[in-house]
Amino acid sequence: MGRWVPNAQGRLIEAALDLYSERGFEQTTVAEIAQRAGLTERTFFRYFADKREVLFLGSEQFERSIVEGLERAPAALTPLDAVAVALEHTATFFADRRAHARRRYAVIDANPELQERERQKLGALAAALAAALQRRGVKATSARLAAEMGVAAFKIAFENWISQPNESPFERSIRNAFEELKSLT
Amino acid sequence: MGRWVPNAQGRLIEAALDLYSERGFEQTTVAEIAQRAGLTERTFFRYFADKREVLFLGSEQFERSIVEGLERAPAALTPLDAVAVALEHTATFFADRRAHARRRYAVIDANPELQERERQKLGALAAALAAALQRRGVKATSARLAAEMGVAAFKIAFENWISQPNESPFERSIRNAFEELKSLT
Repeated sequence: MGRWVPNAQGRLIEAALDLYSERGFEQTTVAEIAQRAGLTERTFFRYFADKREVLFLGSEQFERSIVEGLERAPAALTPLDAVAVALEHTATFFADRRAHARRRYAVIDANPELQERERQKLGALAAALAAALQRRGVKATSARLAAEMGVAAFKIAFENWISQPNESPFERSIRNAFEELKSLT
Repeated sequence: MGRWVPNAQGRLIEAALDLYSERGFEQTTVAEIAQRAGLTERTFFRYFADKREVLFLGSEQFERSIVEGLERAPAALTPLDAVAVALEHTATFFADRRAHARRRYAVIDANPELQERERQKLGALAAALAAALQRRGVKATSARLAAEMGVAAFKIAFENWISQPNESPFERSIRNAFEELKSLT
């Protein structure tokens, strides 16, 4: 049993992002991450199953909170608007995280294995949103289309948001993406 | 040099699909596929790099033909309608292939590695369509959204189509999906 270290998890995440950015994800070992954070490998494995998990920590919770947002959305909303409202809630999650999100995205974008994990996550999010829409009484095909459209809007909003140098909130990016999406049809 | 065998490639594909369906993709070897087709492993490797490629043969050509369809679409069409027209062309490709498409889909659906390959392919298709839209003068965000929406409609249309027992054409499924998509906004 190691002694308790203040914010060990946060330090490990920062150290990992530093190393992944400097050397690449593949070239970084858990031992190096722990060393950079001034901690032991054993401490690392108390928080993360492997070095990939550092980048995807909290993603189940993230998905769950979006699905809960959809479940709480007013029943009068159209399926697509309900998805939009649920995804707008993620703005709270992203507030003050742009620098972190940008670095994380760059690391993922440079590695096919990580890209695949990200694609899989977004696919799972779309499936969860479609299931939640069906629980609201939306038919299967509409539910799946609305969920896929929402996730596409989210992905593009996110990429636009991290590429912006100013402090415009994520909420604006996601709203713009949904407006754009609607204007396309 | 082996002697020429009539339709060796087609026989290998059929043998592979049979075995993947019966035993699962993981449990099937190239030697077994060749044996089932009455051919040698050497002949197999003349057509395919590995047993996964049997399922994804022609996918670059498939993507290229959709992109060409988009390039030929009338300039007056909206970005989304141009994508719809390009994807409707795939109906020619799918005609008379429902039984094959259904079996292939079931094999892919049962294996995470193959699912990933399929997701990657669809992601590449969306990127290629977005690039083609930008060449038509569509702005980046709209181009990406229209491409992602189109691929989502395609995916859902395809799944609906293979689940139908009757002989309704793929064209109808893809048109329905696009109409549904438009009605959602």
